[in-house]
Amino acid sequence: MDKVPTIKDVAELAGVHSSTASRALRPDTRDTVSDRTVKRVLDAARKLGFAPNSAARSLRTKTSSVVGVIIPDLRNPVFPSIVRGIEDGLREAGYMAMLANTDGDPETERKLIAAMRARQIDGFILATSRRDDLPPTHDGELVPTVLVNRDTDDGSVSAVTADNAAGIGAAVQLLVGLGHRRIAHVAAPRELSTGWERYRAFVDAMARHGLTVSEAQVRFCEAFTEDAGRRAAGSLLDDNPAITAIVAVDDLVAIGCYSALAERGLSCPDDVSVTGFNDTPFVGTPHPALTTIHIPHYDMGIESARLLLARIKDPGAAPKRIVLPVRLVARDSAAAPPMDAAPPMERRTR
Amino acid sequence: MDKVPTIKDVAELAGVHSSTASRALRPDTRDTVSDRTVKRVLDAARKLGFAPNSAARSLRTKTSSVVGVIIPDLRNPVFPSIVRGIEDGLREAGYMAMLANTDGDPETERKLIAAMRARQIDGFILATSRRDDLPPTHDGELVPTVLVNRDTDDGSVSAVTADNAAGIGAAVQLLVGLGHRRIAHVAAPRELSTGWERYRAFVDAMARHGLTVSEAQVRFCEAFTEDAGRRAAGSLLDDNPAITAIVAVDDLVAIGCYSALAERGLSCPDDVSVTGFNDTPFVGTPHPALTTIHIPHYDMGIESARLLLARIKDPGAAPKRIVLPVRLVARDSAAAPPMDAAPPMERRTR
Repeated sequence: MDKVPTIKDVAELAGVHSSTASRALRPDTRDTVSDRTVKRVLDAARKLGFAPNSAARSLRTKTSSVVGVIIPDLRNPVFPSIVRGIEDGLREAGYMAMLANTDGDPETERKLIAAMRARQIDGFILATSRRDDLPPTHDGELVPTVLVNRDTDDGSVSAVTADNAAGIGAAVQLLVGLGHRRIAHVAAPRELSTGWERYRAFVDAMARHGLTVSEAQVRFCEAFTEDAGRRAAGSLLDDNPAITAIVAVDDLVAIGCYSALAERGLSCPDDVSVTGFNDTPFVGTPHPALTTIHIPHYDMGIESARLLLARIKDPGAAPKRIVLPVRLVARDSAAAPPMDAAPPMERRTR
Repeated sequence: MDKVPTIKDVAELAGVHSSTASRALRPDTRDTVSDRTVKRVLDAARKLGFAPNSAARSLRTKTSSVVGVIIPDLRNPVFPSIVRGIEDGLREAGYMAMLANTDGDPETERKLIAAMRARQIDGFILATSRRDDLPPTHDGELVPTVLVNRDTDDGSVSAVTADNAAGIGAAVQLLVGLGHRRIAHVAAPRELSTGWERYRAFVDAMARHGLTVSEAQVRFCEAFTEDAGRRAAGSLLDDNPAITAIVAVDDLVAIGCYSALAERGLSCPDDVSVTGFNDTPFVGTPHPALTTIHIPHYDMGIESARLLLARIKDPGAAPKRIVLPVRLVARDSAAAPPMDAAPPMERRTR
């Protein structure tokens, strides 16, 4: 980087004093310099590839117009569209995104937040937080922060989420309408707000249909992954051969349920129906095409960017929570339960 | 951001002079201060959430330890793993990634590069370049740059790519081995290096098997998308009812070929075999599971980060090109041609 041009280089090439070049380059002082000189300075700046030094501005204003975006893993297909939405939302206002992955590790997240703060980040958008997390710095909320696709139990941080309760409610209602009663839930780790909300929504939705949920009907996965879903669903099916439907906490977990069924010689949806959550790209293509809940990934990204920008302008405002609507996407993985499963207390023969 | 703590705040809380606090905070000058004072200063810094000011360092050194990563669209499933690899590769060396999407628009790219340069970016990793692109600034290559999954015709910029020629060669060889002779290619826009390399590799590979490629056997898509693939394959199939196999330039385009076949009442692989490229996540799940070429996305990301870091250290070094190996992943979308297609010159009846 030893060749990055300075204002002095620009002034020299334009044949003016540095202070003149500086005034010519700043829109707010440009009218103190003649048009011809402005043109000469701008030409010189362009020729040298001179970029106005934002590090100097950053030092002066303690802002960088950069926002830190921290997610568990970009390879989880729920995140690319959210991050794309965030980037577009930030760019509308001249901001840029610095991106990092934590693999869900709180210690990595702590280090990343420190590293980003050291780079004068103006705020954070986090998709990583656990239910009991505090804002990144809690000495008077120094850094504006918005959660996306996550929330805290106490609602102390601004957040943009999808309507998890409505989504799970729609899945349960679909299955009950098809005739299912013995419906199980493969849930996410208890520490993650998204999973916890969906778990509570499952219990609530079942209760609305007069169905109680026993402990044996729920398995908590270790992660939002296909493999964790496969293992959790396997254990669930082995302990509860009578279940006829599984509400999975997300699409990757649902695809894992497919594998667990296949391993046991069971067919979806003929033996067991499965629903997902998120409507991630490509979940229409597995066999059977997955019935799932569509969440507005991209809009969640845009909204979280706009919410953060509003907080950067007014850091003292009360935390705001935005819940975006979801919709059921009925494909082929949910159907009526098998005939011999009809008597509620009878165990299905296999 | 008016509450960001300064070194003065830290010194005040610790009850020492600012210069002492500064020396206590810098690892290289820490031993000039008593252990007790160091502890007091560090405690105060932690309590206040003080982060060493990298804007000041950035101004002094004209580096930021931030790299700009510019891609067409994160929602194309080839990119998340590459970007994740880049981020991990940068983090090994204490660097971070600033991410932006161009939607393939050169004007957007130009603006993003300027905006990132203004933020003292140390270098660029670009997955956007067209074959005829010059490095981001060409006034003596001011900003170290590495291309990933892209290359320039003249090899003037460092690049990390997958072995496109070997991959297409493997696909053609598989199809020829299965008995196909009338093999078509759905190619990418001519301006994009990845697509152009694969197109040339297709012509070469066919020639190696004694097969010439007529213009009618190739369609150039408008983009690397499912919809562009569907339209290009449709036009190809309408003009060439005798083809028995399609080598698609990537997986999204291949999935588009599936749609074009289905629209014409043709079955894959019974009527027409299809191969993809990239082995993007989930292409094993469509029906039929896609036979494709696996490229090492994550490793391409890591390698491009390391290559860029080496260039930042030594900007004068000659451009380096790294080509990573690929492998054929045989699934279900390629099979022997239909029996009635055997006579090479006879048109298949439908």
